[in-house]
Amino acid sequence: MMFSYIPNGSITSVQGIKAAGIHCGLKRKRKDLALILSDYPCTVAGTFTLNKVQAAPLQISKEIIKAGGKVRAVLINSGNANACTGEQGINDAKLSQEYLAGKLKLSPEEVIVSSTGVIGEYLPMNVLLSGIDSILPKLSYSGGYDAAKAIMTTDLVPKSLAVKLELSGGEITIGGIAKGSGMIMPDMATMLAFIATDALVDSKLLQKIISKTVNNSFNKISVDGDTSTNDMVVILANGATKVKIEEGTEDEIKFTEALQALAIDFAKAIVKDGEGATKLITLNVTGGKTQEDVDKIAKAIVNSPLVKTAIYGNDANWGRIIAAAGRSGADFNPGKVEIKFNDLVILKSNYVHNFDERKASEVLSNPEITITVDLKDGNAKTTWWTCDFSEEYIRINALYRT
Amino acid sequence: MMFSYIPNGSITSVQGIKAAGIHCGLKRKRKDLALILSDYPCTVAGTFTLNKVQAAPLQISKEIIKAGGKVRAVLINSGNANACTGEQGINDAKLSQEYLAGKLKLSPEEVIVSSTGVIGEYLPMNVLLSGIDSILPKLSYSGGYDAAKAIMTTDLVPKSLAVKLELSGGEITIGGIAKGSGMIMPDMATMLAFIATDALVDSKLLQKIISKTVNNSFNKISVDGDTSTNDMVVILANGATKVKIEEGTEDEIKFTEALQALAIDFAKAIVKDGEGATKLITLNVTGGKTQEDVDKIAKAIVNSPLVKTAIYGNDANWGRIIAAAGRSGADFNPGKVEIKFNDLVILKSNYVHNFDERKASEVLSNPEITITVDLKDGNAKTTWWTCDFSEEYIRINALYRT
Repeated sequence: MMFSYIPNGSITSVQGIKAAGIHCGLKRKRKDLALILSDYPCTVAGTFTLNKVQAAPLQISKEIIKAGGKVRAVLINSGNANACTGEQGINDAKLSQEYLAGKLKLSPEEVIVSSTGVIGEYLPMNVLLSGIDSILPKLSYSGGYDAAKAIMTTDLVPKSLAVKLELSGGEITIGGIAKGSGMIMPDMATMLAFIATDALVDSKLLQKIISKTVNNSFNKISVDGDTSTNDMVVILANGATKVKIEEGTEDEIKFTEALQALAIDFAKAIVKDGEGATKLITLNVTGGKTQEDVDKIAKAIVNSPLVKTAIYGNDANWGRIIAAAGRSGADFNPGKVEIKFNDLVILKSNYVHNFDERKASEVLSNPEITITVDLKDGNAKTTWWTCDFSEEYIRINALYRT
Repeated sequence: MMFSYIPNGSITSVQGIKAAGIHCGLKRKRKDLALILSDYPCTVAGTFTLNKVQAAPLQISKEIIKAGGKVRAVLINSGNANACTGEQGINDAKLSQEYLAGKLKLSPEEVIVSSTGVIGEYLPMNVLLSGIDSILPKLSYSGGYDAAKAIMTTDLVPKSLAVKLELSGGEITIGGIAKGSGMIMPDMATMLAFIATDALVDSKLLQKIISKTVNNSFNKISVDGDTSTNDMVVILANGATKVKIEEGTEDEIKFTEALQALAIDFAKAIVKDGEGATKLITLNVTGGKTQEDVDKIAKAIVNSPLVKTAIYGNDANWGRIIAAAGRSGADFNPGKVEIKFNDLVILKSNYVHNFDERKASEVLSNPEITITVDLKDGNAKTTWWTCDFSEEYIRINALYRT
């Protein structure tokens, strides 16, 4: 490992990054407004939901990133998604962007905006704008954790992390905040994550790195197979350290590796905190003919309610795993498949399964489980993450809005 | 309506069809073996799961139907799927087929075999073969309901129906039995249904009619998005009435219409009895540009756990419906969409939604609800069926096998 985790790290572990998180009144009691501000202009890159229904702030922020300019601030509210709100939604998002830009003496294009929460309600703009007034004096170089709290919806745990690493030009930091935890399904960006670094990275390279990273982390998790209208991963590079990362260098590899580790940790934290989740499941699908095959199979398994409920019930029901693989559309030979739960062999080729049910149930009762599905048919492999499916998921989602 | 339902109708309402259902010991207490026998050789057609993992009996029965010969009997066991059982599974299925054929003085190719239940366990053949001995004397012209009971797994209600209709050559009957109720997901046949008619239909026409029928009924239902390894729809035509149906005639249209009504009733009964279901939801997606678009959208909505839990909670969360449509991959304009729950308008174009929340919640508390999603963008339309998603689904599936 070429990098190390910063204890209690967050997005504000990054040089020149301030943040804050407050309650402004979009939710009844909990924090609902976060602000991230960089002392220096940042290159920016990001990935966005592929849902055809795209929230107003997401449309605006996407344009900013596409334009390739530099940004200084990210404003995020929870409690209201500002999605399915038509023209008024766009106007509201723009107004919040302009209002904040005015207060910070920036141009609106230097402000990324993001929302999460209930779909289809207009933002109460008086509440939001006075929230902007209130949050500005709270900005601090240690406000990352508060910001992480303010972007939560049904999350139970704030998600905040940072790593540091030594590059050829000196030490740099990558830090971020993220949130889950329903409507998580890999079809591009699938939740909110805001990441910053004090390295100097041009926006083209930053986009390449974040796209690759998201593809190997946030795009490989599933809570319930639904994809949100709002979700985005944004990375800011403010160059505070003046350590420049050039394309094609060892530094790029090291940086990508550290960013990917951070993103995978966020992804796992999101799944672990998935609505009603009691277990974190790491799924390895190995021995496939092609990358597409192993990813198709993994995606079908992590999205199968039958697999997820069996794991919730500590039931070593490998039949449901192989049946989910079977409907994935991937090319494989079911008779060759081998399945392990942690190190315990559950299924050998030719459907041989003389494992100890009690031991298997014991393995499944752990809060973290690794399931390996070996197709025995090639060299392609993949890793995805998911959670189990409990009654609590139903309760949370039957009662969430009202 | 050109046909009428037969009160307490079943597959044995059809002339020359006997059936029986008994407990033979594959399950602890409940009935687990069904037999259908036609007095006359039947043309046969069917549709089968698209899951790559296909149960042994399904592989055998598929070959029989492909070969185009006539059949006399269908043997179905519940409690054990005989899936993921390799060569031994095939041998076991063949043995049961041969054993029954021997007792009935038929050739093995005249016997369709089918299994449903737990995946990955070998059939206890001594139990099954002595079950065949026991069931033969129970065959009767009124045994359809018992057969319907014997093919149940987690179903709560036996599914048994028959209709009669007048064709140019005289009156004929179509009757059947079916079962759900987990792993229901439209990707071809998705459960078990055995249907018989005393009309005379050649096997090519019968296949055309059943394929079309399944596509508009069983392929448009979803309980949990999983697709089974075992599921099949089989139709037998024994010609007992000598009323012949010719391709391209009014008779074909009438017959297809009646069969489709029967299949839709079975499909709805399966969804209504879905694991943990408390409500039957009929989803109409109208006003689409193409048939593919409306079906994609309907499929995404009926499979969305977020939509299904909201309905369980009587929550008029139209945002989740439109978000599910958005991730379906279909082409539509979210801003044009209108949504109704029964006759209550929930959403008008441009995201206008000033409905009465209390009224909407009242509508949703009914055991049967029709949701209409009008895309306002064309003439294509479709109807799908699904159920809500309750804690009970989790309990059933966390504890099903062990």
